Amino acid sequence: MNKQEGERIVDYFIVRERETSIATNGSEYISLTLSNKDGIIRAKLWDVTEKEKEWLHKRALIKVDGLITFYRGQRQLTIQRVRLVTEEDAIEINDLLNHANIPREDLWQELRMFIEEIDSETLRELVKTLLRKKEIREKLTTIPAAKQYHHAYYAGLLEHIVTLCHVSAQLLQVYPQLNKDVIMTVCILHDIGKTKALTDPVVPDYTTNGELIGHVVLSIEMILEGAIEAGISTDDHEVLAVKHCILSSHVNDSLQSGVSSKTAEAIFFQHINKLDNQLNALFMIGNEANEDWTFSPMFKRRMYTNRK
Amino acid sequence: MNKQEGERIVDYFIVRERETSIATNGSEYISLTLSNKDGIIRAKLWDVTEKEKEWLHKRALIKVDGLITFYRGQRQLTIQRVRLVTEEDAIEINDLLNHANIPREDLWQELRMFIEEIDSETLRELVKTLLRKKEIREKLTTIPAAKQYHHAYYAGLLEHIVTLCHVSAQLLQVYPQLNKDVIMTVCILHDIGKTKALTDPVVPDYTTNGELIGHVVLSIEMILEGAIEAGISTDDHEVLAVKHCILSSHVNDSLQSGVSSKTAEAIFFQHINKLDNQLNALFMIGNEANEDWTFSPMFKRRMYTNRK
Amino acid sequence: MNKQEGERIVDYFIVRERETSIATNGSEYISLTLSNKDGIIRAKLWDVTEKEKEWLHKRALIKVDGLITFYRGQRQLTIQRVRLVTEEDAIEINDLLNHANIPREDLWQELRMFIEEIDSETLRELVKTLLRKKEIREKLTTIPAAKQYHHAYYAGLLEHIVTLCHVSAQLLQVYPQLNKDVIMTVCILHDIGKTKALTDPVVPDYTTNGELIGHVVLSIEMILEGAIEAGISTDDHEVLAVKHCILSSHVNDSLQSGVSSKTAEAIFFQHINKLDNQLNALFMIGNEANEDWTFSPMFKRRMYTNRK
Amino acid sequence: MNKQEGERIVDYFIVRERETSIATNGSEYISLTLSNKDGIIRAKLWDVTEKEKEWLHKRALIKVDGLITFYRGQRQLTIQRVRLVTEEDAIEINDLLNHANIPREDLWQELRMFIEEIDSETLRELVKTLLRKKEIREKLTTIPAAKQYHHAYYAGLLEHIVTLCHVSAQLLQVYPQLNKDVIMTVCILHDIGKTKALTDPVVPDYTTNGELIGHVVLSIEMILEGAIEAGISTDDHEVLAVKHCILSSHVNDSLQSGVSSKTAEAIFFQHINKLDNQLNALFMIGNEANEDWTFSPMFKRRMYTNRK
Amino acid sequence: MNKQEGERIVDYFIVRERETSIATNGSEYISLTLSNKDGIIRAKLWDVTEKEKEWLHKRALIKVDGLITFYRGQRQLTIQRVRLVTEEDAIEINDLLNHANIPREDLWQELRMFIEEIDSETLRELVKTLLRKKEIREKLTTIPAAKQYHHAYYAGLLEHIVTLCHVSAQLLQVYPQLNKDVIMTVCILHDIGKTKALTDPVVPDYTTNGELIGHVVLSIEMILEGAIEAGISTDDHEVLAVKHCILSSHVNDSLQSGVSSKTAEAIFFQHINKLDNQLNALFMIGNEANEDWTFSPMFKRRMYTNRK
Amino acid sequence: MNKQEGERIVDYFIVRERETSIATNGSEYISLTLSNKDGIIRAKLWDVTEKEKEWLHKRALIKVDGLITFYRGQRQLTIQRVRLVTEEDAIEINDLLNHANIPREDLWQELRMFIEEIDSETLRELVKTLLRKKEIREKLTTIPAAKQYHHAYYAGLLEHIVTLCHVSAQLLQVYPQLNKDVIMTVCILHDIGKTKALTDPVVPDYTTNGELIGHVVLSIEMILEGAIEAGISTDDHEVLAVKHCILSSHVNDSLQSGVSSKTAEAIFFQHINKLDNQLNALFMIGNEANEDWTFSPMFKRRMYTNRK
Repeated sequence: MNKQEGERIVDYFIVRERETSIATNGSEYISLTLSNKDGIIRAKLWDVTEKEKEWLHKRALIKVDGLITFYRGQRQLTIQRVRLVTEEDAIEINDLLNHANIPREDLWQELRMFIEEIDSETLRELVKTLLRKKEIREKLTTIPAAKQYHHAYYAGLLEHIVTLCHVSAQLLQVYPQLNKDVIMTVCILHDIGKTKALTDPVVPDYTTNGELIGHVVLSIEMILEGAIEAGISTDDHEVLAVKHCILSSHVNDSLQSGVSSKTAEAIFFQHINKLDNQLNALFMIGNEANEDWTFSPMFKRRMYTNRK
Repeated sequence: MNKQEGERIVDYFIVRERETSIATNGSEYISLTLSNKDGIIRAKLWDVTEKEKEWLHKRALIKVDGLITFYRGQRQLTIQRVRLVTEEDAIEINDLLNHANIPREDLWQELRMFIEEIDSETLRELVKTLLRKKEIREKLTTIPAAKQYHHAYYAGLLEHIVTLCHVSAQLLQVYPQLNKDVIMTVCILHDIGKTKALTDPVVPDYTTNGELIGHVVLSIEMILEGAIEAGISTDDHEVLAVKHCILSSHVNDSLQSGVSSKTAEAIFFQHINKLDNQLNALFMIGNEANEDWTFSPMFKRRMYTNRK
Repeated sequence: MNKQEGERIVDYFIVRERETSIATNGSEYISLTLSNKDGIIRAKLWDVTEKEKEWLHKRALIKVDGLITFYRGQRQLTIQRVRLVTEEDAIEINDLLNHANIPREDLWQELRMFIEEIDSETLRELVKTLLRKKEIREKLTTIPAAKQYHHAYYAGLLEHIVTLCHVSAQLLQVYPQLNKDVIMTVCILHDIGKTKALTDPVVPDYTTNGELIGHVVLSIEMILEGAIEAGISTDDHEVLAVKHCILSSHVNDSLQSGVSSKTAEAIFFQHINKLDNQLNALFMIGNEANEDWTFSPMFKRRMYTNRK
Repeated sequence: MNKQEGERIVDYFIVRERETSIATNGSEYISLTLSNKDGIIRAKLWDVTEKEKEWLHKRALIKVDGLITFYRGQRQLTIQRVRLVTEEDAIEINDLLNHANIPREDLWQELRMFIEEIDSETLRELVKTLLRKKEIREKLTTIPAAKQYHHAYYAGLLEHIVTLCHVSAQLLQVYPQLNKDVIMTVCILHDIGKTKALTDPVVPDYTTNGELIGHVVLSIEMILEGAIEAGISTDDHEVLAVKHCILSSHVNDSLQSGVSSKTAEAIFFQHINKLDNQLNALFMIGNEANEDWTFSPMFKRRMYTNRK
Repeated sequence: MNKQEGERIVDYFIVRERETSIATNGSEYISLTLSNKDGIIRAKLWDVTEKEKEWLHKRALIKVDGLITFYRGQRQLTIQRVRLVTEEDAIEINDLLNHANIPREDLWQELRMFIEEIDSETLRELVKTLLRKKEIREKLTTIPAAKQYHHAYYAGLLEHIVTLCHVSAQLLQVYPQLNKDVIMTVCILHDIGKTKALTDPVVPDYTTNGELIGHVVLSIEMILEGAIEAGISTDDHEVLAVKHCILSSHVNDSLQSGVSSKTAEAIFFQHINKLDNQLNALFMIGNEANEDWTFSPMFKRRMYTNRK
Repeated sequence: MNKQEGERIVDYFIVRERETSIATNGSEYISLTLSNKDGIIRAKLWDVTEKEKEWLHKRALIKVDGLITFYRGQRQLTIQRVRLVTEEDAIEINDLLNHANIPREDLWQELRMFIEEIDSETLRELVKTLLRKKEIREKLTTIPAAKQYHHAYYAGLLEHIVTLCHVSAQLLQVYPQLNKDVIMTVCILHDIGKTKALTDPVVPDYTTNGELIGHVVLSIEMILEGAIEAGISTDDHEVLAVKHCILSSHVNDSLQSGVSSKTAEAIFFQHINKLDNQLNALFMIGNEANEDWTFSPMFKRRMYTNRK
């Protein structure tokens, strides 16, 4: 969304946030947060009518005609004309979502191949039992990996999972001592709790489960339920190794409570997971940036996004 | 174990730790850690014979005749005569264990009354389903609450649980807004994972499950299994509230990962749990101390144990 | 203050903050922070006259007629008519202040009973000497316990003190080893320095003493002055125990400087004090909240305020 | 105490610590910590007799004949002959104490001159009132500034105070904006609470007051008592400034509780106090060290003590 | 810049920041950050023309006629007339910059005298070789010591250096054991890397070098280059001591990585450097403040700036 | 070194540490730390003669005949006969050193191939210029990567470097956006400062340079010297990128001072470096361990070294 000040924009958007206010001259206006494949932009509609207040709700698909302005250093869209998307526009929500870099179908094919390469019958069956459920599979392959910062787009979690599988496959050649089956299963299942912790792939928010239990323990609970369903002993050694990697991947080394990584596979996963998250976060802001230096909210500092 | 230097001791003990060494004069000796109801003491047996090396193993019940000495500020027993306990001694392991301050049977009766006072059928049934299992009930009513520091004695966990129930019952009169059933269930089940995380009540050690999963998440897993068995929905609102209290009770406020306490019941339990642990730790060292000031390994400072 | 957008309000308020600005159209306006028993609200008066600028000062009692609007997600009052309170309104500052949940007179009666139950003559006399002074007593029974977050209302400190006395009375039955007189005296005097650290109960601010010495050490100084006046030795063992509880209650365990809690009473007070502060903070935001989840500035996270 | 292995020592010492043990060959021995002006050394007396156990107590003055050995990298004295000091030895405790680098009488004279240079009558009178008391003056001019690490010798606190006065006098020429009287008073009184927190100048230990209140708040209490005695208002602006500097000098910037430095004088004192403490600590280990690098327990790292 | 609300200002300024926006009434305006010797002020120019947008760029020298208003508690200038500075104004950039308290030429003379007093030929030659380079000397004597907070004005770094030399000269009389030549060289060269890390003295920003290497290591690199040029061995003992002081002055004691101060000179410099930075920061806000208490962004708290 | 208690050992060792002491029976003995390819063991030689004290010095190669004992849980060798290695033994220091898992010559060949694959002439020439120097090359290919914990054996640094090159080569296929030449150069040069910071490959200790400058900045200095020698501009963009990766790899995200990683290559290197260090540390203790759980001094916790 690298538009210049004063440039005109005529485009389709999803409404992500919406708020009515009264301007200093007494008239009402609406503040909006809009998004499409080009990114996110804040917008203002001045002198709003009662009707507009009615149909301009969160998650609406709209067509906008407006001008780019700047307010406190941030790009903003002053809307001049706006209407809901109609059938003739032939626009679907999917067309407006930012997607993973690789088509979701290809990612899903790759993931299925990685699953088949798990030699342990126990772990392969555990993965399949969980992904066989439609509500899990559909969510796992559409939600972002995080609400913002990294892989924060449609099917971002799936892309993250498949990338981790590739990273693992490459590094298992350098470190052949590691247990491939445990690592691959962890790559695939480590964030499965997010299918219960996030509301939906388009405008994701935390569920009450996500707030009160957290996606890490939700993942452990889902793996336990999956194991019970698949007839795997709750004390199975391989499943234990998988759960340990997931639990310890989110724990800082200096914490007394919680579980620190205590196996080679847990240490391995901890580092490749952080590596992929941070590189993706950096590439995400790099794509948006026009300049050499861009402030990153995740790293909490300016990053050098000059990629020449 | 407040013996003076040079005093003679003739008493029964359990062997908790044992190690063979060679003295600077070339002869062999055994270092032991012994315990009975009076506490724990380190001991040395000089010029040990091959036979003694054989039967003086970990967990043995022995009768000792020795003298109190001091080494680097610590009381130590120089053993002069030692033999295994025989039938005539009429000594059982139970006689040598330090116990909770209240008889275990009384504690168990009190706990059963608190369970009956849970009004929610869901939660009462959850608790009963879990405690109905013999391996859980027997361990929950015999293991210490921690390996050292607080409630570190036979049935220490049971005493901790019952004290928390009393504390809650008293304070629910001051804070009637709190959900009694959730709090009572949390008091009873919050450390149930320790029945899987600790090996045994006499010389407790961490199991592999305890090291790799941790007793907090083990508690959550056992509650999930119990709920499934009791036919309770895995999304039940009350069970969710219980699990949240347990998960958040072990998490420091400043931690990014994990789950912070977000309900009034979780905040309540967090504080009374710490209160009971710390008071018990202080009373434990106070009981052993002869002096005004005693160093506490839990608080990592000298505490004022003058109780006049 | 759960008004909807567009709703009209006609009510009495205290002016807590006031600031004149120039609008983007060049005309002057006043930004106000107003409060009454329903809570706090920000307000704007557009096209303000010189006269209005004159009498609309901090601490004024006013009657307002205005409309609720929203600005950046926050409720705001656009004032249409405003005037000073007159005699006919029969409104006093007291009517506009948010109060403790229990009438201040009842709290004061309860406190006096708790004082009489202190068996130690030394400590009872210390408490009475301090509360006998009118400037201390009046402030102690009217100021909030904190400027915001918890017990932040008229007589909030008194309510906090009396609740702590109740909590202690209940728990002394569970932990009879604790020194009742020391604990009760600490409950009553622990925040007495706030009578010097805060300016007044209505719009409290820190005094220079409060900023440079802090209310904890101010409490210690006042207790020392009270002891001297009551003819108590400055080395009295019970007064020492009281001062230790107060000093250590505000110190994190990991701090090198300052004094960590080293007695059972200090540990006890530390936890019940935090417990009451945090529960009150949570109930305060719960009262204002309409929704399941409310952001708490004290906990720095969203809290679950669904109380069904 | 830079003796080589195998060297013989015949000298006088104070007994600082003493402990009886039983050797691996069954005979009794005594472990001692001895000190004289050359430093501190650990010693062992083998095959000790009952009589020796009797008169070899803590604080005894003794004459020793022994050999230097090394045990786990630390110099140690194997005692071959030992007896109590007799009148003929003409040895007093004073002759065995390590002293400040400058004679105590000279330091006291310098301090008196600095006191006379305080222009504010209030502050000069406050200082004089406190130092006029014999028990304060005697202790202030003999105790070490700390039990170990820095100025840990007879009259170490006095030397620290006088050095701080010199440092302040020099730097007030560079920063003339600072309030000389406040700074000089702080230099003199900032550690006055240590006269109540430490037991004695020879083998200093913490008093119960020192442990439960801490020397910082004890200083504040003594200044308050001194001010009351000198007829100074408890709200005096200069005394407030002095107390603020003392309170904030021991508080880390990141602490929420306690009081951070908020005046120029407090910031000034905070830095020169740390500077003098750390330089003295480094010079202390430098004096003992024979080698380029010496481990410092205060800095918790090896320091470069090569002073060429 | 202690103007009251409504006061009129007619004065010269530098434009430091500039941003175009669209007002709620649809017209364009410019937000500016202006500065001159009296400080920094935010300004707004309403209903801006295309021409004005063209010549009102960053770093422009302008003459402004406007009124002081307040917005969200901050002083702001509503511009009524503005034009570029012309030859007749006889205003140069130098006239608008805030300067060190002592004329830059005098500071430079003082610095040259301090350099001549370095007895070590190695260190004196090292300093001279570096300052002989015009691009280093000019920048070192004009840039601020920091972008904000302390010595944040024209020639602020030079003033900081010269003050540190004075502080050192004064304190070397109290601590004669310290190596004068090392300390003086460190005072002069410790921030020399800032000549590469900051873009320019007027509107300083970080260079890419400054962001990626940091001014500390840039200082070390420049000293190495200077030493090579001056024919000094890269292992010279004095240069090593200087580099150690610089490297360790920016490292917190608790950091594992990096280098902690390990010499007396490093500890000395660490403290006087912090002392001068913090006092200067406090004097800077004190100069601007009209009130007793002023919030300091560096200390992250309100500071007492009452200097009576 | 998995010998059982009482087992006899006849083998060759290097003396790493040596200390003379006096036993409790008055006779002298020597404590030694010995090592050979099987690991490290502490040893005691009782009743030592003057001659033995003479030739049994640090770094001596010796032949030992002794018995395995245990002292405080640690294996220890009670020496019964010992002599220096003679020509007939045909033993060289090399035969006693623990080596990297791959022959040093093979590692060196692999490293040379990775160097040739650097496409940037600037970076390839920089690497070659530095490795062309015999004293750098010989040390880089023989020293351990750390004194203990990870790659702590002969040529451990070389093995670490080559493994990082392999890891990078594998992952550049997954993340092709990264700059290969910068990453490979960082892998090779990131620890080059250790050739100046460590004394020697056999019994490595920190040099004064290593203590006062640290190996990170020593690496930067050596790269600067290498660049000057190779005629590369000191502002070269690629060299800057390399130096940034090295500087930021040792800095924790939360540090204010120092430089945080700000490029994708720096983030990449930070994670793979930690990954390889931690996996190697875990494999090192795993090789020594006989049991499921082994305490790791690096991770400061027990690790699960069961590799089945």
